[in-house]
Amino acid sequence: MINIVVAGAKGKMGAEAVRMVQAEKDFSLAAAVDLEGAGKKMKDIDGMEPLDVPVYTDMQACLDEVKADVLIDLTSPGVGKKHMQIAIQNGVRPVVGTTGFSEEDVEELSQLAAEKQIGAVIAPNFAIGAVLLMKFSQLAAKYMPDVEIIEQHHDKKLDAPSGTAVKTAQMISEVRDERPQGHPDEEEQLSGVRGGEHEGMHIHSVRLPGLVAHQEVIFGGEGQTLTVRHDSLNRTSFMPGIKLACQHVMTMSSLVYGLEQLLDI
Amino acid sequence: MINIVVAGAKGKMGAEAVRMVQAEKDFSLAAAVDLEGAGKKMKDIDGMEPLDVPVYTDMQACLDEVKADVLIDLTSPGVGKKHMQIAIQNGVRPVVGTTGFSEEDVEELSQLAAEKQIGAVIAPNFAIGAVLLMKFSQLAAKYMPDVEIIEQHHDKKLDAPSGTAVKTAQMISEVRDERPQGHPDEEEQLSGVRGGEHEGMHIHSVRLPGLVAHQEVIFGGEGQTLTVRHDSLNRTSFMPGIKLACQHVMTMSSLVYGLEQLLDI
Amino acid sequence: MINIVVAGAKGKMGAEAVRMVQAEKDFSLAAAVDLEGAGKKMKDIDGMEPLDVPVYTDMQACLDEVKADVLIDLTSPGVGKKHMQIAIQNGVRPVVGTTGFSEEDVEELSQLAAEKQIGAVIAPNFAIGAVLLMKFSQLAAKYMPDVEIIEQHHDKKLDAPSGTAVKTAQMISEVRDERPQGHPDEEEQLSGVRGGEHEGMHIHSVRLPGLVAHQEVIFGGEGQTLTVRHDSLNRTSFMPGIKLACQHVMTMSSLVYGLEQLLDI
Amino acid sequence: MINIVVAGAKGKMGAEAVRMVQAEKDFSLAAAVDLEGAGKKMKDIDGMEPLDVPVYTDMQACLDEVKADVLIDLTSPGVGKKHMQIAIQNGVRPVVGTTGFSEEDVEELSQLAAEKQIGAVIAPNFAIGAVLLMKFSQLAAKYMPDVEIIEQHHDKKLDAPSGTAVKTAQMISEVRDERPQGHPDEEEQLSGVRGGEHEGMHIHSVRLPGLVAHQEVIFGGEGQTLTVRHDSLNRTSFMPGIKLACQHVMTMSSLVYGLEQLLDI
Repeated sequence: MINIVVAGAKGKMGAEAVRMVQAEKDFSLAAAVDLEGAGKKMKDIDGMEPLDVPVYTDMQACLDEVKADVLIDLTSPGVGKKHMQIAIQNGVRPVVGTTGFSEEDVEELSQLAAEKQIGAVIAPNFAIGAVLLMKFSQLAAKYMPDVEIIEQHHDKKLDAPSGTAVKTAQMISEVRDERPQGHPDEEEQLSGVRGGEHEGMHIHSVRLPGLVAHQEVIFGGEGQTLTVRHDSLNRTSFMPGIKLACQHVMTMSSLVYGLEQLLDI
Repeated sequence: MINIVVAGAKGKMGAEAVRMVQAEKDFSLAAAVDLEGAGKKMKDIDGMEPLDVPVYTDMQACLDEVKADVLIDLTSPGVGKKHMQIAIQNGVRPVVGTTGFSEEDVEELSQLAAEKQIGAVIAPNFAIGAVLLMKFSQLAAKYMPDVEIIEQHHDKKLDAPSGTAVKTAQMISEVRDERPQGHPDEEEQLSGVRGGEHEGMHIHSVRLPGLVAHQEVIFGGEGQTLTVRHDSLNRTSFMPGIKLACQHVMTMSSLVYGLEQLLDI
Repeated sequence: MINIVVAGAKGKMGAEAVRMVQAEKDFSLAAAVDLEGAGKKMKDIDGMEPLDVPVYTDMQACLDEVKADVLIDLTSPGVGKKHMQIAIQNGVRPVVGTTGFSEEDVEELSQLAAEKQIGAVIAPNFAIGAVLLMKFSQLAAKYMPDVEIIEQHHDKKLDAPSGTAVKTAQMISEVRDERPQGHPDEEEQLSGVRGGEHEGMHIHSVRLPGLVAHQEVIFGGEGQTLTVRHDSLNRTSFMPGIKLACQHVMTMSSLVYGLEQLLDI
Repeated sequence: MINIVVAGAKGKMGAEAVRMVQAEKDFSLAAAVDLEGAGKKMKDIDGMEPLDVPVYTDMQACLDEVKADVLIDLTSPGVGKKHMQIAIQNGVRPVVGTTGFSEEDVEELSQLAAEKQIGAVIAPNFAIGAVLLMKFSQLAAKYMPDVEIIEQHHDKKLDAPSGTAVKTAQMISEVRDERPQGHPDEEEQLSGVRGGEHEGMHIHSVRLPGLVAHQEVIFGGEGQTLTVRHDSLNRTSFMPGIKLACQHVMTMSSLVYGLEQLLDI
């Protein structure tokens, strides 16, 4: 049985994590940490699951009082870093989902984990399907280097391209030399139709109501194409990745950055 | 039985048309017209089908000597216009596949056909699937006006976007008011990723080896998307449309522009 | 301004309809009808929107007291029929989403509406995208009669194929003669791989977690394929169809069955 | 420079291989082997490329007279086995594309290659995209074990499912335990719609004109799906794989079965 504390338990993602821990027979929910409710039970707090599990607002107080093996932290980068430090100091393995840590943050936390011989996982994306998409794209590009990326999101999204599209392009760039895509003499009769360009790869961003978060990577070769596509519907897609991290972190003794590091591919 | 003359019979498209006419039990191949081989049979000419069918280089001479109902013309716009005029003058119904006629050409030929009460079909695209794609896109846009177009072609193609993508966007514009797509405050972190824009519609052009000619039109609405896609592999895709035109033109007494005019949708 | 009563307002679909009516500037919510809460306001009822709108449990009482133009009924078939009768008798136009009416029910309600010269809409599926998919499939089958249907749903679904797949196949059958699909001598080495068969059309049902409700209809012709696909994410996809029906029903004087009847295609 | 003999050079696949060898600057075509034309040059034989390259009908005679490093064999399984034995005995590395060898054949040839310390490659499928599809499917199934396979082919194909679909299912079965797909209580209202079953995986075969050879493997997880798709248009899709094998086999000293063994994934 793995005893788990969930921080940010009242947020949308945290609430999903609470449900995941509850549903998993080898996991036990030890405590919830959030901004309010110190001294109460979850069931006494509006918007939390009706559980007889203690709530804390202070991580150190929490780890002093409950027996925990793993901390799932779904708060903000600032709070998350402090939580990770306290967890590692207390021998509790952190599993943290955030895109906001700097390289220095990761380096610092990595040293602390190494020193204490404590496993830790930080992942900017816990959706296993998205991580597989990126990894497969990198593997395929070695043998089919002609590639374009189409990412599709709802029309509330402000930035384009998506972070996953950029990450995918970067991972592909690690294994292939820069090369132009399309005919050397091709011309855009309508500016922008050939998309954005990252080291020769063309990236296209579609924005429509009714879409959620989708990405397609198309590899072209003589007489054939290979397509890898990920469709994400909601934040439950992160739970299998968080669960996997909780299981792996128990046997680790250092910090790992990125869910792909835990996959055997 | 419909007696058919094929002009441009030695070209790739013309050769397909010859095979289509041969295969269709209600069609009979009366003659082939091309740049060389006057006075010979098709079977005597290298690169033509082994048929006992006369070859002409002059359209008037051809129609003087053979009994013909329909002319399938797959030559160039310049030659095609002259051929059409001769055919109509001789009471033969032309079916012409070309994108090169000017509005004036079409107008002029239209008057001639009306005068002679002779059916005629000019179509820039005889692929029934592509024509259905464009028509369905126009119909859908009335009810789901948020739309983006992704067209995908082999990387030998020089122009972007494709003619079909432009035509599709124009047809959609006829039924919907211009409207912006995506969030009003969206920003391109990488220039061009949001594609080219036609009256608010975004168009994306993908170019890769292994692709042939493909187009996807995606309509987004609350909680749903509708996608119409056409995949074209080779020029045989034009034959069902040419066949349909040959059948319809027999009962028509004026010129029609565009295969969609013959479809009952 | 169209004054609207929503029946079944506390259900999931009804709650969406309430939000849709609120958001539409030409619509005004006159009253909510549900199983409990007579005499209260919506804001006083747990699970309803915080609105100052009266709640009724009896349809006749509701229509006696509030001024209404349209009734959106999202209750059960049994209750829905009674509600429709009362609405028509009171000069209120019903818009009803249910798959449960028998042909006799529809006939009876149709006569009542004709007699009273009152518009009414019954639709088994209010998702505009799904209705367009079915209509386009029927139109395409006239010109590309070789077709297979792939429907994909979440793995909680008990029946296969989906109702939409069956309806699509039936609509296609209305315009094409029965014809076998695939090679006459084809053999299944693994029983069932070629799918279920409806008048020669093959239907395939995919069931996986992570899917919601999707359908793809693929038309094959020489050298080309045409694909029409609908992806539905959640029940908000029904709202544009219900809105359209509310608008149309105001100028109608008889009952119409099926959202497709209101589309100009 | 790698000197290459192509056997089966007049066949469709062999002719493609000849063109590939010609186009590759590090490859040199040493000889062609086929059923006829011994003593002639390729340019003297109808249907062969206009090359000044000798033609043989006997493999031993060929290898006695020309200097060869690699044999690309695209004949039949029976002839191919004999050719492989002769090649290995003569220190020439065979690259063989066939699905027809028995396990005993492979074992026997493997021993011979080991004995002679000669590299050899046998691959039932040289399309790199298809091999990547199968490998990625196996990798994904470890983390997303809910999977269905849809393969789509032209309607001239007699067998269903395709060999690639069966191979994919077998490779997935190696890494996941048998598990039922879909709801335990699901019911087919139309027999066959849920497809064929291989250890709980459902396989669907689509057959339509206009299709060539396509396969889609869909993995479903909570709130997400991952799809890997391969589209093959023609036999040129095998050439990059054959080329890769010719390069790798030069540094190998034993027999390898399957192109995937040469990929670094």
